[in-house]
This record gives sequence, structure tokens and C-alpha cells, in this order.
Amino acid sequence: MSENSNIFKVHFLPNDTHVEVNDNCTVLDAAHKANIYINSICGGDGICGKCKVILSTGTIDAPPTKLLSGEETEKNYILACEASVTSDLQILVPKETRLEGKKILLDQNEQHYMTWKAILEQARFKHDALVKKICLKLQPPTMDDSVADHERLYQAIMMDQNVELNVMQTGYRILKKLPEVLRENDWTVTVTLGHRGKVLEIIDVQPGDTSKINFGVAIDVGTTTVVACLLDLQTSKVVDSEAVYNTQMKYGEDYIQRIIYAIQNDALEEMQRSIVTDINKLISTLVKRNDIELEYITSVVCAGNTAMHHFLLGLDPERIRKEPYIPSANFIPPIRAIQLGIDINSRGLLYTLPSVAAYVGADITSGAAAIRLDREELPTLLIDIGTNGEVVLGNKEWMVCCSASAGPAFEGSGIKHGMRAAKGAIEIMHITKEFEVSYSTIGNVPPRGICGSGLLDCIAEMLRSGIIDRSGKFQKGIKTDKLREKDDEYEFVLVNRDETAIDNDIVISQADIANLIRSKGAIYAAVSLLIESMGLTIGDVHCVYMAGGFGNYLNVRNAITIGMLPDMPASRIKFVGNTSLTGAKMALLSEDAFETVQNIASQMTYFDLMGNQKYMEEFMSANFLPHTNLDEFPSVQEELAGNNT
Amino acid sequence: MSENSNIFKVHFLPNDTHVEVNDNCTVLDAAHKANIYINSICGGDGICGKCKVILSTGTIDAPPTKLLSGEETEKNYILACEASVTSDLQILVPKETRLEGKKILLDQNEQHYMTWKAILEQARFKHDALVKKICLKLQPPTMDDSVADHERLYQAIMMDQNVELNVMQTGYRILKKLPEVLRENDWTVTVTLGHRGKVLEIIDVQPGDTSKINFGVAIDVGTTTVVACLLDLQTSKVVDSEAVYNTQMKYGEDYIQRIIYAIQNDALEEMQRSIVTDINKLISTLVKRNDIELEYITSVVCAGNTAMHHFLLGLDPERIRKEPYIPSANFIPPIRAIQLGIDINSRGLLYTLPSVAAYVGADITSGAAAIRLDREELPTLLIDIGTNGEVVLGNKEWMVCCSASAGPAFEGSGIKHGMRAAKGAIEIMHITKEFEVSYSTIGNVPPRGICGSGLLDCIAEMLRSGIIDRSGKFQKGIKTDKLREKDDEYEFVLVNRDETAIDNDIVISQADIANLIRSKGAIYAAVSLLIESMGLTIGDVHCVYMAGGFGNYLNVRNAITIGMLPDMPASRIKFVGNTSLTGAKMALLSEDAFETVQNIASQMTYFDLMGNQKYMEEFMSANFLPHTNLDEFPSVQEELAGNNT
Repeated sequence: MSENSNIFKVHFLPNDTHVEVNDNCTVLDAAHKANIYINSICGGDGICGKCKVILSTGTIDAPPTKLLSGEETEKNYILACEASVTSDLQILVPKETRLEGKKILLDQNEQHYMTWKAILEQARFKHDALVKKICLKLQPPTMDDSVADHERLYQAIMMDQNVELNVMQTGYRILKKLPEVLRENDWTVTVTLGHRGKVLEIIDVQPGDTSKINFGVAIDVGTTTVVACLLDLQTSKVVDSEAVYNTQMKYGEDYIQRIIYAIQNDALEEMQRSIVTDINKLISTLVKRNDIELEYITSVVCAGNTAMHHFLLGLDPERIRKEPYIPSANFIPPIRAIQLGIDINSRGLLYTLPSVAAYVGADITSGAAAIRLDREELPTLLIDIGTNGEVVLGNKEWMVCCSASAGPAFEGSGIKHGMRAAKGAIEIMHITKEFEVSYSTIGNVPPRGICGSGLLDCIAEMLRSGIIDRSGKFQKGIKTDKLREKDDEYEFVLVNRDETAIDNDIVISQADIANLIRSKGAIYAAVSLLIESMGLTIGDVHCVYMAGGFGNYLNVRNAITIGMLPDMPASRIKFVGNTSLTGAKMALLSEDAFETVQNIASQMTYFDLMGNQKYMEEFMSANFLPHTNLDEFPSVQEELAGNNT
Repeated sequence: MSENSNIFKVHFLPNDTHVEVNDNCTVLDAAHKANIYINSICGGDGICGKCKVILSTGTIDAPPTKLLSGEETEKNYILACEASVTSDLQILVPKETRLEGKKILLDQNEQHYMTWKAILEQARFKHDALVKKICLKLQPPTMDDSVADHERLYQAIMMDQNVELNVMQTGYRILKKLPEVLRENDWTVTVTLGHRGKVLEIIDVQPGDTSKINFGVAIDVGTTTVVACLLDLQTSKVVDSEAVYNTQMKYGEDYIQRIIYAIQNDALEEMQRSIVTDINKLISTLVKRNDIELEYITSVVCAGNTAMHHFLLGLDPERIRKEPYIPSANFIPPIRAIQLGIDINSRGLLYTLPSVAAYVGADITSGAAAIRLDREELPTLLIDIGTNGEVVLGNKEWMVCCSASAGPAFEGSGIKHGMRAAKGAIEIMHITKEFEVSYSTIGNVPPRGICGSGLLDCIAEMLRSGIIDRSGKFQKGIKTDKLREKDDEYEFVLVNRDETAIDNDIVISQADIANLIRSKGAIYAAVSLLIESMGLTIGDVHCVYMAGGFGNYLNVRNAITIGMLPDMPASRIKFVGNTSLTGAKMALLSEDAFETVQNIASQMTYFDLMGNQKYMEEFMSANFLPHTNLDEFPSVQEELAGNNT
């Protein structure tokens, strides 16, 4: 026993992990130390109530809280972030607080394409990987042709690649080994060339022909999930994909919380290591599973929001959240991956796609390139709904963008039974006039929660079936016991406990609905503002691309019904999935695509919505289903009118 | 005593240095180990006889040699390279075998110029240092101008320097510290920019205005001497100069011997360290003497021959001496000086000027740029006489070059009393018809030997006064006891022992004369060959620039008289000193000059003289004073005819 000392042992179950902590630690701190993920949206501020754990043995010190129900308190539930350790403990982390088993859904479209060449061609990008390998057979020198080794190689590259001599760079180490490498296989060599802005760097020279072996990894560095895709750069085939939760989540669910954590705890380095470790794990899994050597990976392209790029690069993110919201850099030059500790070929390059502003990141510029917004003749919208909700409006001549502070509701955060698009998530939902709920889950397993597309369906269907009114309020007069009051709040039971995988009813509460309406309202307001700011109307918008991690399918009509998207023919709305990753893949395979992202990033005009009076007005009007002004949604007006008759 | 062991102690005097060696070591090896310089032209092959030392105590094992006179053998002189250590020894290194005190002559022209701006202007080079510092006052960001820190800096540089955004590069470390640096002095920063080919690298960013403090070092990396010149890059002033002997001399007097040594002893790394140590010593002396911090030095430009550049960079030099004589690289990209261990600012750049071929190095391209050969309308010659003797013929449209294998005779090597242009060297000599010798020495001190210009005068004057005939043979009938036979060879006493500083007569021997004639013949043959190869005659050559370390003055007329230079009005021949260093200084101060050297190097056509039949014929004809064919030297014919009457 350690009653007389300051060190306590905490035993976490079901992981069976032990950790020692000081007596001023919270249970959440102990979990961080034990590297156990505990759901925590507020980052440990005692606000979100997501970090519920069960105290099996031992004593803790915690203030009273309304975030736990009487039932929960009886069952020894505590909030990990509020509970100070005052003895040795045994802590049980319940299912809903854990991450395990929530395998992240990868883009199913992956499997439909044999190679990415077709996709590049469709997007009209030239296939010319950012880092490529070429095999060159040089003429051996003679007395009549006594060009030096280095210049002989340059000349051969020049001829092969049709570039100018003075745009090439060679590192000192390459130069040193060059003469031997050239002669080892009788003047046949494989040169690895990397684009660095206007310069083509000789990254490596190897004897013989190894040009067939060249891989790259495209990474979507999301606030919540990190997705990596392994590509064969020679054949443009997608080899494999893998995703992990961003372990930075332990520092805060959204990136603003993480920035605060980083600054208050001087933890930038630790948080950089955390994201780098995630990336290394992904790459390591991909290479092992596909029997590839790490050194064959010569390039990585990352697309993430501005804050994630700062964390990844170890750039101070403090000013991102302070007026006037200035990133250290939007355009980050390619650097050797090893400089950040990313394990690939020791001379391999890391490319980070460019951001536009503190709140419009590379995920958006990447997405805009993926859908070739820069080639559209008519005004086109790109709406990416993730933790924020960024909107781009533009065509080949101009682009405006903004970030909507929509919150992560459609990613499942802040929603009682919200969850990410993973196995067990309800992704499609239908509710009859008789309030019967039918649904399907990802993986066709008993439901664990509801992901973005399911939540969107849920709101639309509840509106149609009259469970809620246009303000989102429950119609308390409806005849069903599914609508009930619990802990002073109304909630609607979507799935009964006996059908779920979580030993609980899956419900949607009044607060959840308000959250989702605020979220969709923020997006619609941003869309309206951008359209108006360009002197256009919704009728001028030719097409809407909707991106984000909603799930496999998104009911576009329902998105219009709840007033998230403008009222227009569903045929002009396309759900395009994770465009951030798509753009990163394209850039990896095509310098042309990479440059396009750069051009898009330089071209985009950023609108700051914070403190914008017009935006606030738009937002207030959009805080209704579908909108305060029904005239903006004629088809929904018609739909609901039919409903009411 | 160590008679029973394999370890012997060797005590060197007058240094008073002790060293322990194995019994299979030579005295020369022991000297290397003790870091004592012993003159040795042949690199330890027992050929040159320059490594004479006096055995004070102990026993050695040495084969018989003709390189020591009877008198010398009596005085216990031994050849250090031939003598195996067989007991503890005491060795006295006599003055003539030592280096100390031979302070290398620096270009006296230095002092005549206040700044190098005038020189650059005269050469029509723009003043724009390879690495420059600029002070920028940025506009602080606001909500209406929320450009990121990195791009804000780029835009300011772009405006200031009139460059494109996409030709700039920033290192990761700079990026990381940028936000803090920008804000430390209220958005006033000093940016250090380095040219890297087409790219402008942000080498450093410092708070406030430090743009006034920026220094660079130009270095002539000679086979024999390494000369460094410290320049203030902001004012273009030459601050100071310093020179040391290349300590690589202990591995061989010429670079071919050093290449052999490097390969046979796997000593490339050691030899690289040796030259880097020389350079660090020079820089360290310069900064200390001028009270400058090492970090203020942001750039170094090196000009040396191809082999020296290989040694400096640690590039394998083996193929330089093997057919087809292929350098690893003629064009070496700029690298961080610290990568080679050169101590300047840790992010400072090292630029090596480009070579043309194995035997035409950066010293020549640098020289050609220094005299602006690339702007000449009419065919112009540049002759650089160092250890080899390289010749360039060209104008603004074409350039041809070759290396003459002239040997280092005019640097004093292989000449009994030859020495480099240092204090005590006879640099001007006059001989009357009565065989009276008058002379002046560098530093006006008693003579220690004869440097290049003195040797050149000596041959011309001996020819004029009839001491030698046109074949270089002593006229044994002349009435003077200064011509004498010694050790089976004739020699002419130039200075009596009592007038010298070396306790010996200063003489010139028949072998010396033959050496010098071969040397000048090789140069003249190269000149002839280049002129003929272009279908020109000597009359077409507009001007001759003669470069090299001859001394302060060079009697151009004497160079014609002995047939080293073609017969033309002396007014069209210019002695230009160390053009290798001049070009390096220009490059340091002017990116334009640096690029000019690059262009010159790419433009030059190299003629290989080895095995060239025509060259051999030309060389045979030139092995005469002034030449076999007197018609090529009408003015000398006239001069000598007047002489004979």
C-alpha cells in the first residue's frame, strides 16, 4: 500500500494496464499516461461529460456534477477529468467511453478503381509523380567524351525529363557516392527525382534499374482520424489504405482545445510526436501488410487543416486562435520526412499541401483540386463538413471560402449517441408516420450509435413525421411512448436497448437536435453569405460538391429538407466523400495536381465570419427547419405542406 | 632504450618535437606523424632529394643515393624518405628543408583599392553578393490582412528583391523560429538570402536590423598555398588576407602524388580534414585579427584546381589520374560549409567554382572571369602558371583551354635554389656582360632562394650575357669562376654564401636550366597548339594575360626572350597575379560574376594534350631559347643578334 506516499497505482480495465501517478493527478491524466483513450470532447474541462468511467475500487476526490445521472452515480460512474486520485484505484472504462473496435470507415470507392491513372486523366492531371524514379543508361566516358560524372548524369536527366540543367540540385551525399554507383552496374542507374518548387532534386542514385519500385503515401491528417493510402507511384495503383484515430484526441477533441493544451502545458513537442507516431504506425502497417520495405517509400503528401499542419510540423499554433488569426505558414516547403521523424526512405520528401488561412486548411485546397473547382465554368460550391465545415464557392476565375464553425455534430461529437462513420453506426434511417424507425448500420451489425448521414436522415425524418416542428422542438402531443422525458430533458428513442450493442437505448435528445440544427444552420449561413458576397443567388450555383466523413451514402434530399444545402435539384448535388485524401493522392501522383493545389490556395479569398454581422443574421435565420424564410426552400415547403394535409 | 621493442623515439630539432614510431617507418613518416613539414617534391619516392635532414644521433638504414653530395654525406645528411628508423633518433631539419618563416607573399595590389566595388564595376559585374543580408520592415498582420507569417515574409522579399515567389526556399528550422523572430523587434527583421542556382534560399532570419554585418571569405585553394581573403559583403571592402602552406604537401608536392597517396593509404578522409583544417585556420586568424564573430561569415567561395576541389569535398579523386581522366563533378552545388567541417555561420554556404576537366580547374575558370575573357572581342590568351600551367584562348564567342604539364619549376620546385614568392626570394635579377649579378629580394632581406620571376630573369639574363647558349647549355669557355663544376654537374654561382641567409651559395645548375626550359617550352607549345587549333596565328592574338604566383613583378620582356610567351609588343601582355583568388572575390560579391564563371566553365572546350603528336612536336621545338624556329621570335632574334656583335 502507498497511503503514506504521494504515488498511487491506477489499474485500468478492461485493458489491464497499470500506471503510477502523483496524488495531484486526475483519472484522465492517469489514462493519458497509460496511453488509454478516454472520450473527452472538452479536453478535460468538466463540461462535456463524455469521459465517464466506473470506479471499481479505491477513492477519488471529485466535485458534484450534473453531468452524471442519479442512476450513473449509483453505479459508481465518475468523470475521469474531474476525479483526483487519492488512493490506489481500479478503473473500468465502459464501452461508450472507449475507442477500440471502432474501426474507421475507409472510402469504399477505393475498391472500384484498378488504377488512379484513370482518375488523374479524368481530372486532366498529367501523371508525373512528385517523387519519381527513372532508369538511365549513360554512355561511359571516353577520351573524346570526358564529361565529369555529375554533369554526365545531369545531361542524361535533362534529355530524359526535358528540363533545364540549372533547375537541378544534388545533395552532397549523393555527389560523394556518385562515381561508384555509376560504375557499379555499367553506367545503368536509377535516379530518384523530387520536385521542390521549381527545382528538381536528385534525391538518390542507385545502381541498375530499380525504377519499378517506388511508393508514396497520401495522408489525410484529420483532427479526429488520420487516414493513409499507399500508392504504387510507377503504376498509379492504390495498394492499400489504413486509418487510425488521431491520438492527439487525448489532448482535446477539437483543435482549439489542443492548441490551448499545447500552450498551457508546453506540450507542442509531445503533441508533434503524437501525430508523427500515428503516421508512422499507419505507414508501418501498410508496408508490413504489403511486404514493402520502408525505404521504397520516397514521398508522403499530407493534407490536413491548418492547426494539424502546425502540430505535424511542430510550428507554434498559438496565433491560430488569437486575433488576427495568423498561421506560421500556409505554404510549407517540402522537407525530408526524417526531419520530422517520419520513417520512410531516409532521403524521402514530405510535402504538405497549402492552407489558405487559420481556419481554411489544406484539406480544403486539396478537396477543391480533387473536384477541379479550378476548371469549372460556372459558380460551384464545395462544402466539406468535418469538425468545422468549410465552404468554397468559385470557378476557374475566382474562389472565395470561409469556415463555418459548424462544430463536429455531424461527426457525432456533442450528440448523445453520435459516433463517427465506423462499424455499428446507423448510416441510413427512416421514420414512418407511425413513428416506427427502420435503419441500417455500417457492417450490418447491431447499432452502437449514429453517424453523420444517419443523424441527417434522423432530423429530416422526424420533421417529416411530425415528431419535431420546424423549430426542432419535440411535438409533445404525439402519440408514442418513444418520446419521453428523462433527467429534465425530452428525448426520442430510436432503437431499443435490446436491439443495440451498447446495453442502452439509442436516443436523440432535444439538445442533440438543437446542436445539429445549429450545425447545419452555420453551414447554410456560410453558403448564403458567400453567394451573396459575390452578388449571386442560389440559382446561379451550378453544382454543389459535398465532402466529409458522413458515411458511405448521404441522402442529398434530406440535406435539403433540413436546410443544410440550398434548395436545388438533387442531381446537381454530388456527395464526394473524403476529398482531402483524394487531393493528396492526386498530388502524390502528379506534380501538376500539386501545383494546382498551390494555385488554388494562392487564389482563394478568405472571408472571416467571426464578428460578421451579416453572417450572424443569416445564421439566426437558418436556425430553423429548413429555414426561417420558407421561400428559399420551395420544394421543402411543398413537401411539408403535403405532409400536413 | 627500446632496443628490444619495435617502438623507437624520434626527436626532431629545432622544433624539439618527440614522436614514437614503429621500426618499419622512415624518417619522413616520423616527420608526418610529428606534423613537421619536410620538403619533399616526389612525395617520398627517393627521387627529388629535397627531404635532406641531418642525423644527429642514432642509426638508420638507407640505400646508397646519388642525391647527396660527398660533403653532405660527411655532415651526416640523409634522405628522410629513404632512411628507415632502426633506433631512437635525433634528427635536425635544416633550414632549406623547412617551411617556417617562409611567409607567403600576398597580392600587393590588395592595398591599392579601398573597395572592390570599383573592381566589380570595372569588370561590369553587378554588386549582389551570393549571400546577402537585407533589412525588411513588414506590415504587422490585421484582420483585413491576415497573410501567414511565412508568406508575409516571402512577399516582402519578393518586393525588395524583385524575384518570383516560387524561386524561394526556406529551411525547416527557419520556419519554426519565424513567428517569434518576426514579432521580437516589431516586424523589423534581417533576412540572409543565399543564391542556390535559380533558387534564393532564406538562410536565416534575425530580429532587428543586422544587415550591416555580413562577411564572406574568398579562398584560392592552391596545391601549394591556400590564400584566404576576408571581405565585408555590405561595403565590398577587402578587410584582410592570410595565406598558409597547404599542409597536404606532406602527402606529396603535386596533386598527382597526393591522389596516389590517398588511394594507396585510404587517406582521403584524412586529406580532406587536412585541407579543411587549413581553411579553418585561415578563417580563424582572419576573424580574430579583425574582431569578427565566426557567425558573421555567411559564405565562402573556393577556387582551386579539380583535384583540390575533390580533396576539399572528399570526392574520390582516383579517376582524375586514370584515363579517360573523369572528375566526379566539375560543377558542385553550394552546400552548407558545416557539412565539410568548415567553421562559419552554421547555415552559411560554401560555393566551389566550377572546373572544366580533370586538369583545367576552377582556378582557371575563375581567372578567365576575373579578366572578363568572356567580354573580349578579339582572341585573348590567359596563361596561368602554377604547378601545371594552364592556357585558355578565347573571346566572347568561344574558348579553348588545355593544361600544359609544365611542372612546378617556376614555383621553385625541382630547382636547386628555387623557392616560392616569399620573403627572401630573389624576384628581380640582372646579369651584366661581365657576369656580375645584381638582384633584389622580396622584403629586402638577404636572399634564401629564387622565386619564379627571378628564375625567369635569370634564364633571360644568362642568355643575353652569353653564360648559356640557345640550347641552355653553359658556355664553358666564358671567363669567370662563377661557372664551376660540382658533383659532376656545372652550376653558376648567382650569390655568394656570405651574402645569403642560408649558409650556402645560391646557384643555378645545368639541370635547373633544363627544367626551366622544359617548363617554359611546355607552356609555349600549349599556347601554339591552341592558336593553331583555332586556325589562328600569334598575330591574331590581341592580348595575353599572365597569371600565377611569380612574385610582385614580372619582366614580361624576359618572358618573351626565353620564349615562354609569344613575340609581341610587351604592352599587350599584362601580368595579373593571382586571378584565381580575384575571381573568387568577385563571385563572393556578385552573383553575376558567379554565374559568369559557370557560363565560362560550360563554354570552354578542353583539349587534352596527353598523347597529342602535334603538341609533342611543338614542345620539342620550344625546348630551345627562345625557340628552334627563331622566325617566330623576330624581336628576340634582333636582340640576340645585337648581343653577338
